[in-house]
Amino acid sequence: MQTLVQKYGGSSLATTAHIARVAERVARWREQVARLVVVCSAMGGETDRLLQLASQLDRKPSPRELDVLLTTGEQASVALLSIALEARGVPAISLLGDQIPIITDNAFGKARIRSIGIERMEQALQQGQVVVAAGFQGVDAQGELTTLGRGGSDTTAVALAARLQADECQIYTDVDGVYTADPRIVPHASRLQVITLEEMLELASLGSKVLQMRSVAFAGMYHVPIRVLSSMTEGPGTLICLNRTGESMEEPLVSGVAHDRQQAQITVLGVPDRPGVAFQILEVVAAANIEVDMIVQNISGAVSHTTDLTFTCPRGDFETALELVRSMARDLGAQRVSGNEQIAKVSIVGMGMRSHAGVASHMFAALAREGINILMIATSEIKISVVIAEKYVELAVRTLHEAFHLEKGACLALPGQHDPQPSTLQEAQGS
Amino acid sequence: MQTLVQKYGGSSLATTAHIARVAERVARWREQVARLVVVCSAMGGETDRLLQLASQLDRKPSPRELDVLLTTGEQASVALLSIALEARGVPAISLLGDQIPIITDNAFGKARIRSIGIERMEQALQQGQVVVAAGFQGVDAQGELTTLGRGGSDTTAVALAARLQADECQIYTDVDGVYTADPRIVPHASRLQVITLEEMLELASLGSKVLQMRSVAFAGMYHVPIRVLSSMTEGPGTLICLNRTGESMEEPLVSGVAHDRQQAQITVLGVPDRPGVAFQILEVVAAANIEVDMIVQNISGAVSHTTDLTFTCPRGDFETALELVRSMARDLGAQRVSGNEQIAKVSIVGMGMRSHAGVASHMFAALAREGINILMIATSEIKISVVIAEKYVELAVRTLHEAFHLEKGACLALPGQHDPQPSTLQEAQGS
Repeated sequence: MQTLVQKYGGSSLATTAHIARVAERVARWREQVARLVVVCSAMGGETDRLLQLASQLDRKPSPRELDVLLTTGEQASVALLSIALEARGVPAISLLGDQIPIITDNAFGKARIRSIGIERMEQALQQGQVVVAAGFQGVDAQGELTTLGRGGSDTTAVALAARLQADECQIYTDVDGVYTADPRIVPHASRLQVITLEEMLELASLGSKVLQMRSVAFAGMYHVPIRVLSSMTEGPGTLICLNRTGESMEEPLVSGVAHDRQQAQITVLGVPDRPGVAFQILEVVAAANIEVDMIVQNISGAVSHTTDLTFTCPRGDFETALELVRSMARDLGAQRVSGNEQIAKVSIVGMGMRSHAGVASHMFAALAREGINILMIATSEIKISVVIAEKYVELAVRTLHEAFHLEKGACLALPGQHDPQPSTLQEAQGS
Repeated sequence: MQTLVQKYGGSSLATTAHIARVAERVARWREQVARLVVVCSAMGGETDRLLQLASQLDRKPSPRELDVLLTTGEQASVALLSIALEARGVPAISLLGDQIPIITDNAFGKARIRSIGIERMEQALQQGQVVVAAGFQGVDAQGELTTLGRGGSDTTAVALAARLQADECQIYTDVDGVYTADPRIVPHASRLQVITLEEMLELASLGSKVLQMRSVAFAGMYHVPIRVLSSMTEGPGTLICLNRTGESMEEPLVSGVAHDRQQAQITVLGVPDRPGVAFQILEVVAAANIEVDMIVQNISGAVSHTTDLTFTCPRGDFETALELVRSMARDLGAQRVSGNEQIAKVSIVGMGMRSHAGVASHMFAALAREGINILMIATSEIKISVVIAEKYVELAVRTLHEAFHLEKGACLALPGQHDPQPSTLQEAQGS
């Protein structure tokens, strides 16, 4: 018998009218699927409202109590959706994290799932009830309420799907799938029918926040097929498949263009080139719990025996990081520290590029043609990221989207390879 | 070591500013009392907001899901108060109904407490933590969340106090004690220092809704001293003592005047006087879950062999009850059914009246002097209630308050008995 896990996010549950609409959709699915588990986030805005209340009482509230507070959000939404389902004659039962139970460690605010009991869910499913499960929350071995961190409802959905060996985990959100680029920037961006988990991981980490990264990793670990769909419209969405390797399907060279405006760049110039200096600089930043993303180190001059170090961090942490680095740079005898908040990261992601040269140069050439200067470059097996001045971000995304012909979906071959005038591409690559 | 249970109602926790003020008060108490348990209601207005959401989705929501929804109210408030306490350096821990645990039956929406575990609370108290317990909620043997019914947080507080053998259970509310009458009607009403549980029970049932009735009954059963105080001001409040009988303290003749505008009156005239007719009429009303309060039956005429039956019910149920009674009256061959919504019940309550004649006549005389017609009379050992036209309610309350000299506190003797001119009273009693 088919088992389906669906997850509805806060924007799909923002008001009782939204909840009623979700109930209609679940009721329709229930006619086709016997075993249905629906995971809910808190009603849109509720988590922020609760955080606001807590912050009015304490600048740094106790993580334990914050979790007791925040879990009320999903508790209310699962009760309301169950009420809406029963109003439509669909038998339903809400189950909270500690009722399922979803056992986690005791890291309040960012707990990790240790185990999930399925007896209670199976019992309800066998009785024909739709299980309406609270996302984001769990309980530790001592009975303390925990949360899985922001966006953790996706993780709950994927974990329940894995545990129940569901046929599919559907993530309903306010977009109708994964796009080749942000449609607000590239009007011709096309919805991908399929994307691999690895590509999705890179896209998620690059600011295309369709899914929480951790849930994608989880899906890979437990081989859960995920589908991203819109709760507002009908449509097949995007299937996030496990792995295209080994399948007959051709791997797309480039699946999409991602961008991220939330980064800032800090450069330390003229650092004495001794072993461990990079470590010393980055360590003070890490000690302040600031996440460092891209790191590039150049030798500025062999004669001076100094080096330059550049890294990026979240823009919200820029001031703090700059101060820490300035202080450390003085101690190290560096020449100068500079910072830049007006930057953006633009990346292309695709499984195919790992076995295909020429993608990077095609990317750089396209940017160069538009006069966009590249400040930093970082590459992984399936993505190439560049840091550019923020003012160019829309232009860069559109340029790359066009350069890889993504308006037709994922790019399967470098445009130039089938181009009637290959010289154009060669020329561009050489520039 | 002293153990204190405090309960703060929704109006004391309406905003984060209110919660901060409660935290200040708890912090001050914590300096004097080593073992402190604080029971919280939901933030003021929250329960109504949640009920509103549920009713938008289903006119008659599932009681189980309604309890899942409503328990979020107290869950949020205990987390917020704990956060506010810790911000002030007071170690605190929130405990929910299922964490304590408070085990109830499975009557959702009106569950009864079966047992309370104290291990978890004792452990926290021994670690010097203030226990911030969620009121109103429990868990049944199957792990389902339950609620104790509206105002159930008082019951939680008294039950925890009983189980922990607390020295006192303090109920903080928006009034600073129990008054001899509603101060909005009688500006000279005085705060009672002490009142017995039995008197409190009568007052609570008569519309002076300081405490939930059930919690008062509970306090009597388990010998818990309750004190009603204001969370806004300082002051000793009113101590609700177990029983004055056997103590040397004199029992006040009249402790207070209560009134209730929420009643309506229905009269069936000329009912054939057969055994069981009163039962038949009241049964249809009870079957519709309408609570009948006062019941009076008169023989209207020995010749006609008919009787008149009058009873009161909540005003909100008046139309339904009237329709039911009209239909039943036709079947019984009664002459006429009349109803009156414009009535009020006014009562005097006092332990002393059970051993003292003359209180009733003193009451009736006072009302007669003001030209207030009495429509119905009902008496118990410690109270006398009359039904009057609603327009007289303020006048009646003020008149009785004055007649028993309650502006000086509880009335210990009929005013006339120490009156230099006893004839005045005799005259009044005889009228």
